[in-house]
Amino acid sequence: MMITDINTSRLFKIANPKSIAVFGASADAMKMGSVQLDSIRSLGFEGTLYPVHPKEKEILGYKAYPSVADLPEVPDLALIVLPTAIVVDTLEACGRKGIRHAVVVSGGFKEVGPEGADLEEKLIAVARKYDIRFLGPNCLGVTNPHHKLNSTFMLHEGDPGFIGLASQSGSIVTQVFNYLAQMKLGFSTAFSVGNEASIDIVDCLEYLGACPHTKVIALYVEGINRGREFVEVARRIVPHKPIVALYIGGSEIGGRAGMSHTGALSGPDPLYNGIFRQAGIIRAHSLTEMFDICWALGTLPPIKGRGVVIETNSGGPGGMAADACDRADLTLPSLAEETLAKLKPLLPATASLNNPVDMTFARNYDDYVITIPKALLEDDSCHALMIYFVSFAAMLKRMYSRKGESTEKAVQDAEAIVKRQAEGLIELVQRYGKPVIGFSLRGYDEPLLASLIQKGIPVYQDPVRAVRAIQAMAEYQELRRKIADSESL
Amino acid sequence: MMITDINTSRLFKIANPKSIAVFGASADAMKMGSVQLDSIRSLGFEGTLYPVHPKEKEILGYKAYPSVADLPEVPDLALIVLPTAIVVDTLEACGRKGIRHAVVVSGGFKEVGPEGADLEEKLIAVARKYDIRFLGPNCLGVTNPHHKLNSTFMLHEGDPGFIGLASQSGSIVTQVFNYLAQMKLGFSTAFSVGNEASIDIVDCLEYLGACPHTKVIALYVEGINRGREFVEVARRIVPHKPIVALYIGGSEIGGRAGMSHTGALSGPDPLYNGIFRQAGIIRAHSLTEMFDICWALGTLPPIKGRGVVIETNSGGPGGMAADACDRADLTLPSLAEETLAKLKPLLPATASLNNPVDMTFARNYDDYVITIPKALLEDDSCHALMIYFVSFAAMLKRMYSRKGESTEKAVQDAEAIVKRQAEGLIELVQRYGKPVIGFSLRGYDEPLLASLIQKGIPVYQDPVRAVRAIQAMAEYQELRRKIADSESL
Repeated sequence: MMITDINTSRLFKIANPKSIAVFGASADAMKMGSVQLDSIRSLGFEGTLYPVHPKEKEILGYKAYPSVADLPEVPDLALIVLPTAIVVDTLEACGRKGIRHAVVVSGGFKEVGPEGADLEEKLIAVARKYDIRFLGPNCLGVTNPHHKLNSTFMLHEGDPGFIGLASQSGSIVTQVFNYLAQMKLGFSTAFSVGNEASIDIVDCLEYLGACPHTKVIALYVEGINRGREFVEVARRIVPHKPIVALYIGGSEIGGRAGMSHTGALSGPDPLYNGIFRQAGIIRAHSLTEMFDICWALGTLPPIKGRGVVIETNSGGPGGMAADACDRADLTLPSLAEETLAKLKPLLPATASLNNPVDMTFARNYDDYVITIPKALLEDDSCHALMIYFVSFAAMLKRMYSRKGESTEKAVQDAEAIVKRQAEGLIELVQRYGKPVIGFSLRGYDEPLLASLIQKGIPVYQDPVRAVRAIQAMAEYQELRRKIADSESL
Repeated sequence: MMITDINTSRLFKIANPKSIAVFGASADAMKMGSVQLDSIRSLGFEGTLYPVHPKEKEILGYKAYPSVADLPEVPDLALIVLPTAIVVDTLEACGRKGIRHAVVVSGGFKEVGPEGADLEEKLIAVARKYDIRFLGPNCLGVTNPHHKLNSTFMLHEGDPGFIGLASQSGSIVTQVFNYLAQMKLGFSTAFSVGNEASIDIVDCLEYLGACPHTKVIALYVEGINRGREFVEVARRIVPHKPIVALYIGGSEIGGRAGMSHTGALSGPDPLYNGIFRQAGIIRAHSLTEMFDICWALGTLPPIKGRGVVIETNSGGPGGMAADACDRADLTLPSLAEETLAKLKPLLPATASLNNPVDMTFARNYDDYVITIPKALLEDDSCHALMIYFVSFAAMLKRMYSRKGESTEKAVQDAEAIVKRQAEGLIELVQRYGKPVIGFSLRGYDEPLLASLIQKGIPVYQDPVRAVRAIQAMAEYQELRRKIADSESL
């Protein structure tokens, strides 16, 4: 019942088409269809593109065809960005040609009321007749940067990544390209499911569960229609891949807004909390939180308990982190005597050897980023290490400026040093198989943060965000275990 | 009892000194004292700096004096960054010279245990003897960018601002220069209070209450010793200026970490919730949240109710905002018939006229940023307007590229357009006296966001953050009213 290979999924050709017939692109550059064709081209799509247009001969440099019947082959996918009134006939023509997969971007269906719902039924009937599976209508399409495919109207930003997304809002796909790129994150594949007339969020979840590029699955949910299947599919995925969901609609108003949006059913919060718990899904309460959790789960080794050790060079950030850990039911274990013995020679007299380990000032910054973390990770009670990062480049710039050396040299040297430090730290993560999570108040353009993030150490701009990510990692292990236990009964 | 003019405060000469004696700066550029002298110089301090050093003749280009007794005048302030053992004698020498204000950065006092506590008592005795008031010990000093003063070890970043901070962690002063600058925010004056041996957080609160540059006060609290005075001072400030506090220490672990940090007493969460409520202070639960709230309270007109109207061009972000409003006890009023009549000609057929007002796609971006907000602000039920912003520059770049025009021209034109739009929107805020709060998933380098922020419209990277800020604005009005009601009894 459950796919283990994406090639066997009906979504495969939607996310990995070799050829696409594009309906709605034209000489008018501002038409949505033209913009979407341009998005596909801009990401360097390597397959064949067939614009279909009754009059135009060439669109955006591609040879255009007067009708789908005229295409020299049966394309893997039809992308339909046409006025509502001609969508059903167009899908019918696609069916006659033998096309079996489509993305229907056009709106004006179920989401606009009873008349639209009737039209949507007709669309579904045509799809059934020709065995077509389609995404939408009223969706923004699919982005699979690993396949150089982005059929949405926004240009893709950043590199291909490991977050698989299925979203009941198209904006949550397109508007986060830039957001994720700031943290060097990206999508493996992202689906905007629209009205889910043919393919729904459950199908996408199943696909992403099998997708080898996807390390963690994010869901933006306004309402789930196939509740039982959703839970079943999720429970088969969770043992090997975490799922994080942002559910909007549990509040009265959110529900109303969601309702008017895609016409899906939403339900009260407790109902969805129950569904997510049963499904083994971690619930996020904001978009920030959802991607924060994905970041840690997609980059770090699994956490083996709830013991967090905090390393800081200042009381305030350490205290904030400790306070947040306590509120998140994480523990701050006392360090073993053996660990303290290792730390003492590395720390100044003013340092605090409690957990948080407060170094006060760094005598040697390599100690702070490598030697001390090593000692802390070797402590059995440490299941995750949280490190507070400040600006090493700023420090070096000042030091150099006092020595009469240039800012450029300081930046250059800082970059080399922090690169080495980040390499040292990620090596420890791998050696000890324990997560290391950073937090800082600096922007992501800070060289140390950029290096750490590049190497796969998430650094959050607030200790509370970092702690929520650690908590979610622990939650994931507990959810996995619960599913394993119930399966073995 | 309560100061109304900062000139009458003993903190005035600490935050606005005309001359400073600096102890601890030397030829060794890496010594904390040297770094701090350099910070003062770097911000362009316009007063006189007197490094005091037993041997050196010149430090950082300033004439150095062998002892404080040799200074040609009695400086307003002594900045002491010396080894613990000689701090008390140094303060004594300052007293003999007639200096009456000091910042004691040196640590090794109450925070290290009973021996340090004894030494701190000696420091206090000397201060009493000479009528010296001082900040610290174990603090990072003061930053008053309006006076071009930054005595901390970090270089100041960004412009002078309107947030007054009193912090029991020095890092919360120094490490947020960069953080705040990202949002074009800055401190009016920020105090790191350290062990509060002479001047405490209550004194700083009182000062900031009277400080004309301070529009909103932020407090980082690990424990308050003068609880009654704290509440009294706050209650006198709140009617004319909001106060936001981040309290760390209410959790068991947070308390332990705070304890080891400055040695202040911390108490359970409910106790502090009570203190804050009584004091009329808004409690924040993370640093992000504290500054988010300060941003809205410091830039926008007061909110007159809990009715929020949401404008979006996409269902997902609108739904997220609506959901967050509901959870925050904000209401989403239905729009008046009159408002709907104004909106209809501005919106495409696919638009939703519910609240959230979902424009779907923008026919005219000026409508989205100016004309539609105007109609919404004119609706009596709208107490605050939330607008979802996307990248206008990205749109323009695509449009221009299709027309064969350059990216540079697109960026230039986009900047001119968004500047005009931001001006139009802030004019509406002023005309209708209602807050407009933006949210977006773009970075702050996005031209539209940069323009809006520049003009004084806060734009948050998550709708949940924007909603929390609106909620806090409503909370502030309610707290003010409660104080006014109880005073009039």
